[in-house]
Amino acid sequence: MRDHIKAARMKQYNQVSGQNIQRIEALSDGVFAIALTLLVLDIRVPIRENVVYEKDLAIAFGKLTPKLLTYFLSFMTLGIFWTAHSSQFYFIEKSDRNFNWINLSFLLFVTLTPFTTAFLSEYINFRFAVGVYWLNLFLLGIMLGRILNYADKHNYFKSNIPGKNEIKKAMIRRGIVAQSLYALGALLCFINTYLSIAALTIIQLFFALALFSKSQSPAFFGRQSKSAK
Amino acid sequence: MRDHIKAARMKQYNQVSGQNIQRIEALSDGVFAIALTLLVLDIRVPIRENVVYEKDLAIAFGKLTPKLLTYFLSFMTLGIFWTAHSSQFYFIEKSDRNFNWINLSFLLFVTLTPFTTAFLSEYINFRFAVGVYWLNLFLLGIMLGRILNYADKHNYFKSNIPGKNEIKKAMIRRGIVAQSLYALGALLCFINTYLSIAALTIIQLFFALALFSKSQSPAFFGRQSKSAK
Amino acid sequence: MRDHIKAARMKQYNQVSGQNIQRIEALSDGVFAIALTLLVLDIRVPIRENVVYEKDLAIAFGKLTPKLLTYFLSFMTLGIFWTAHSSQFYFIEKSDRNFNWINLSFLLFVTLTPFTTAFLSEYINFRFAVGVYWLNLFLLGIMLGRILNYADKHNYFKSNIPGKNEIKKAMIRRGIVAQSLYALGALLCFINTYLSIAALTIIQLFFALALFSKSQSPAFFGRQSKSAK
Amino acid sequence: MRDHIKAARMKQYNQVSGQNIQRIEALSDGVFAIALTLLVLDIRVPIRENVVYEKDLAIAFGKLTPKLLTYFLSFMTLGIFWTAHSSQFYFIEKSDRNFNWINLSFLLFVTLTPFTTAFLSEYINFRFAVGVYWLNLFLLGIMLGRILNYADKHNYFKSNIPGKNEIKKAMIRRGIVAQSLYALGALLCFINTYLSIAALTIIQLFFALALFSKSQSPAFFGRQSKSAK
Repeated sequence: MRDHIKAARMKQYNQVSGQNIQRIEALSDGVFAIALTLLVLDIRVPIRENVVYEKDLAIAFGKLTPKLLTYFLSFMTLGIFWTAHSSQFYFIEKSDRNFNWINLSFLLFVTLTPFTTAFLSEYINFRFAVGVYWLNLFLLGIMLGRILNYADKHNYFKSNIPGKNEIKKAMIRRGIVAQSLYALGALLCFINTYLSIAALTIIQLFFALALFSKSQSPAFFGRQSKSAK
Repeated sequence: MRDHIKAARMKQYNQVSGQNIQRIEALSDGVFAIALTLLVLDIRVPIRENVVYEKDLAIAFGKLTPKLLTYFLSFMTLGIFWTAHSSQFYFIEKSDRNFNWINLSFLLFVTLTPFTTAFLSEYINFRFAVGVYWLNLFLLGIMLGRILNYADKHNYFKSNIPGKNEIKKAMIRRGIVAQSLYALGALLCFINTYLSIAALTIIQLFFALALFSKSQSPAFFGRQSKSAK
Repeated sequence: MRDHIKAARMKQYNQVSGQNIQRIEALSDGVFAIALTLLVLDIRVPIRENVVYEKDLAIAFGKLTPKLLTYFLSFMTLGIFWTAHSSQFYFIEKSDRNFNWINLSFLLFVTLTPFTTAFLSEYINFRFAVGVYWLNLFLLGIMLGRILNYADKHNYFKSNIPGKNEIKKAMIRRGIVAQSLYALGALLCFINTYLSIAALTIIQLFFALALFSKSQSPAFFGRQSKSAK
Repeated sequence: MRDHIKAARMKQYNQVSGQNIQRIEALSDGVFAIALTLLVLDIRVPIRENVVYEKDLAIAFGKLTPKLLTYFLSFMTLGIFWTAHSSQFYFIEKSDRNFNWINLSFLLFVTLTPFTTAFLSEYINFRFAVGVYWLNLFLLGIMLGRILNYADKHNYFKSNIPGKNEIKKAMIRRGIVAQSLYALGALLCFINTYLSIAALTIIQLFFALALFSKSQSPAFFGRQSKSAK
């Protein structure tokens, strides 16, 4: 086949393939959007019966605190994994059927996150609940790692991305650090479950908030783009 | 690095980054779409038992009025903030991790809006409920301001937008005016909660409906585009 | 201002504005997707208690028929209006704040459709329920008409669309015919509500299925594109 | 009409039409995203009452197994049909009203899948439930076939796709093989319903997991793109 035909075909293919990735992303965003809001349905307005004075309402509202905290935890966890997911897909331009199914498996654990979070918050002093919650985090991490790995092995990354390999390594490093910390945090439940949950929450807060620090964050290329100017 | 390589790289980067903003927007639209419809689930078809004549059904339907009004209020509030959000993102073309998390925080308060609205409508004569509702509006405004501010400070706005600075200023002004009015409206609850809710609703109606007036609305560039012709 | 600068600015503006329309469409599609599936939540698996033989299960399933029919009716209604909405937006490339709010008003009635449909199916022999359902259809039509009208008056249609004026006229004609038939169908409830509901369902089936006929359907340009070849 | 005007008009038409397909895809992805997560709402955190020891919680969690399995089955089924749907739309660039309604019919059966799956899992030893579940799979397949067929008959496929005809044939073959196996699996219920459900689940697992094999998968062009290099 002549080279210019090949080139034209590849270009056309890439455009088509790019759209396809966009559909995988669209489905993922839809599933995340629903999972993010699912636990809100559990936060019910307190029943009027015993509420007479302002103080009663404040107390009734205070009783919603565990549900609100569970909601925040679930939202934060899903926020972390959505950010990681969209950071990875930022570099990926091709897909195939297997890749699609790895992503669907990831989404399966995304949709289970509100449940395992609610399960943990209801049974906060049970090691079993910590274990279930940790397993969810672990499987989310594994699937995210498989997405990165599969795309890497099959050359599905965008070409021409400066510093591509460093970014890939940074992502893998990030994933391994996070999962190691999660595992350590979960193991603390054999000492005390509250300690374990506190550790897991702090680790996640770190991943969500520490990003506001001045350290290099390869994802989204915020800094790189500026230094490249 | 040579200039033309730099330019090509920047162009390629901007395309990629633009897609990424699109994913943040896609997630946001998904979350808004769900939040907008969440309170519909509360509007339940009245039970058949006591409905014999047409008049009974009209009365039963009339009893749904508070739920319908709550729904309208929640829909309008979220409509206002969605419009503001999409107006801002209309000018933004880059993002980074911190920016993403500011947006996620904004979405957190979006998903809580149906709850705080339902809470207010159930405890319409309680200052505490007015306070919770106002706090929600306030935090939505704060986060929206942070999005604008962060994008401005990091030069994430699209270049080549005519009158960019005027638009930014108009947006900030708009936000400050809205939040000041909300705060004043909320403070009225120390006189009377119904007065306070009426004021808050009228302010929001003003922001939703006053836009139909002939005044300049920078967002979406409706007028500018025509004057530019 | 020089002409080539103007032209470049307009081009850049149009690209930006196009993206914005895309966000309005994205929110609309999200709201429609949720509204389409909302009534499925009402179709509950029958309780096991009295089901012993195959025949019992068939009977229990048969009792779900009204809920299934309601679901089909709601799905069809929303399908008709989604198709009309996307047909209109197919020609629109610009938007402004007012336009956005007209669309949000349209979406408000979209989200109420599952409720009014369920309300009708529960009170199938009440004129009041027919009236509420008809009012929903009427307001959806009015808002759709306002979208078309507003876009037309403000020149927000894509330029270079062959036969644009004919299509606009066909859309308006279609809307007026549909709304006239709905009104007539609804008025039949003063004779008999079942007759009225049957008429309304048949009219909607006509709009959904009659499209499979050989008649010219301007929307989506299916035929035009072929005859243009 | 002159040829170059015709060509320009067709190009412009195709761009517009492509966007329209994107809206059909956006609605489909939204509906799939909701359908995928619908059954999660059925997995409720067990009530605290009888849970005292770790073992109690493990037992209570174990009782959720049927609901979790139902969820997995529903997720897998929808995953298979979403993959098939997005594989087909990967090749389609035009649409018309009829095409849109065929797709909406497909989406109707998508939204019913969580219900029929839950119905089957509740009445696992009833042939009637197997029949309802199979009918759902059958109608999903029929609608998917109609989408492919309609697009083929009306030349709505993208031009310039290498090996287009082979891919179409492979898709049709795939559909017929899947539906034949589903029908055979469903017929096994006349021997034993558990056997039938096991067969149906294995067939679906085969379609989901067998894709990880080395066999050629035309969809998404994963391999083709590499061999074309």
